[in-house]
Amino acid sequence: MLEQLLREFYQGSKLAAARIITMVENDTPAGREILRKLYPKGGRAYIVGMTGPAGSGKSTLTNSLVKLMRQQNYRVGVVAVDPTSPFTGGALLGDRVRMGDLALDPGVFIRSMGTRGDLGGLSWAARDALTVLDAFGCDYLIAETVGTGQSQVDVATVADTVIMVTVPGLGDDIQAAKAGIMEIGNIFVVNKADRGDADQVVRFLQATLELGSRDAGWQPPVIKTIAWQGTGVEEVLKAILAHRRFLEQAGLLAGLRQARMKEEVMRRVERMILDRLNNGIQTGAVLSRVYARELDPWTAAEKMLQSMLCSKQE
Amino acid sequence: MLEQLLREFYQGSKLAAARIITMVENDTPAGREILRKLYPKGGRAYIVGMTGPAGSGKSTLTNSLVKLMRQQNYRVGVVAVDPTSPFTGGALLGDRVRMGDLALDPGVFIRSMGTRGDLGGLSWAARDALTVLDAFGCDYLIAETVGTGQSQVDVATVADTVIMVTVPGLGDDIQAAKAGIMEIGNIFVVNKADRGDADQVVRFLQATLELGSRDAGWQPPVIKTIAWQGTGVEEVLKAILAHRRFLEQAGLLAGLRQARMKEEVMRRVERMILDRLNNGIQTGAVLSRVYARELDPWTAAEKMLQSMLCSKQE
Repeated sequence: MLEQLLREFYQGSKLAAARIITMVENDTPAGREILRKLYPKGGRAYIVGMTGPAGSGKSTLTNSLVKLMRQQNYRVGVVAVDPTSPFTGGALLGDRVRMGDLALDPGVFIRSMGTRGDLGGLSWAARDALTVLDAFGCDYLIAETVGTGQSQVDVATVADTVIMVTVPGLGDDIQAAKAGIMEIGNIFVVNKADRGDADQVVRFLQATLELGSRDAGWQPPVIKTIAWQGTGVEEVLKAILAHRRFLEQAGLLAGLRQARMKEEVMRRVERMILDRLNNGIQTGAVLSRVYARELDPWTAAEKMLQSMLCSKQE
Repeated sequence: MLEQLLREFYQGSKLAAARIITMVENDTPAGREILRKLYPKGGRAYIVGMTGPAGSGKSTLTNSLVKLMRQQNYRVGVVAVDPTSPFTGGALLGDRVRMGDLALDPGVFIRSMGTRGDLGGLSWAARDALTVLDAFGCDYLIAETVGTGQSQVDVATVADTVIMVTVPGLGDDIQAAKAGIMEIGNIFVVNKADRGDADQVVRFLQATLELGSRDAGWQPPVIKTIAWQGTGVEEVLKAILAHRRFLEQAGLLAGLRQARMKEEVMRRVERMILDRLNNGIQTGAVLSRVYARELDPWTAAEKMLQSMLCSKQE
């Protein structure tokens, strides 16, 4: 049955891809087995991260970008992470609503997923979905995350090129607050540029970018778009291709990807260890002593670590 | 010498406290030794977290709150985390500028620190500074963080009561983007309430809060303030005391603090493990195989875990 599913997947069945992503998302044993099988087939896709505040028109921009990429015959996958707010419940946008006329295109695969109470972090499910779509043969993958909390930062850990989207009218306070995370952006987009003070936002971004000591050789462009009209989207695609060319010609892409792989493996080890610790018998006893302030958190952490490690490694 | 420093610290010397925090911040062996000694003396301070965007007037609100707390003879400590943006470099505000007329008050201790490239997370140094000030005998501690990225979320991992500060004029888009993290707030403050649409922001917050299923028994208040005038700050203090009373009477405070301690210990174990992994010999070999896509990240993580763990625990 798994073999059949994989056969259909390799033949390009979007239905098979959707089913595999669901299995992966639910973290089933079969899902994990499939991931192991698919991993070696990947590594070809170029991953674009897109982040920005809710309401900045990321989905519209993504859809316009996908259409342009399709005109150049690229196969495209999109993984959109919508925060599952405890106040709204559930993903904000259904895939069908999002996709519109792209739904029937066999060269486009779009998947939305929630963050599952992760408080903004990019979920493992999203990472795994990108792995699946990479193996599915996508030339470009777009990872779209709402820019609150950790997801904004996490997107840099999966993407080759990070696009930061903003809109006029957020106020200088907010734009300034963002300056701290601007270093993760390779391309800046001011969407809804037909609104009031778009040029002012562009100037603010350019001034802030000039202040920073960027990676040598790449000056992040600031591009105005009106995504629902398609205005400026071509420049965004050109900027993506230019950034890709820059990374490849400077010999940086491989190093970037290796650093990301390392980060991913480390995070997985971390998570496995925490799972073990949380299920450990000794953990509770040590923690009780911390609650009673008989033991400090540093000594407690060392005790737990010692109890897990091989003594030969001491 | 350490003994002498500790003696002065216990006698209430702010200079000694400042020196200890610096040692702790620089993560020196002496700093760690001191932390171990101080930890059992703490646990008395009530910790208030304050988060909100840059420019929302958090520092001014904090200063007004501190003055009110002083009128009630509480001893107060403040740890303010300013993001060290790679675009600006260094903490945004010096302690002296911040403190103003509070600088000479022996019952107030204020410390600003950067996030050290932590991309918004609440640093270990900030957590440790809170531990020091707890042992210093502070009745109330205020942990103030700029509300970008992870720090906003992290503040809930150190604070008994979390105050989320906002200001009019950020736009509904931004307010809505915040809804996803509103569950960490126990008290909401609309500062600079003399500006345009303060009442609209209050209504928006109240409506959003009503949508959510909150912890039974506590309905987060939304308070308008003009912090530089002191307007509304008394209500904020009353709300803090009310939330504290609620947590204590409902028997929730101890559980909340234990959960936070556990979280802290786990994070420390995590960090120790990553340090070990990063320095491990085997790590590089396994990662090379991942880079070559001979090995998937899941299997690699398991291999690394196995190499660290005691076989008896298998």
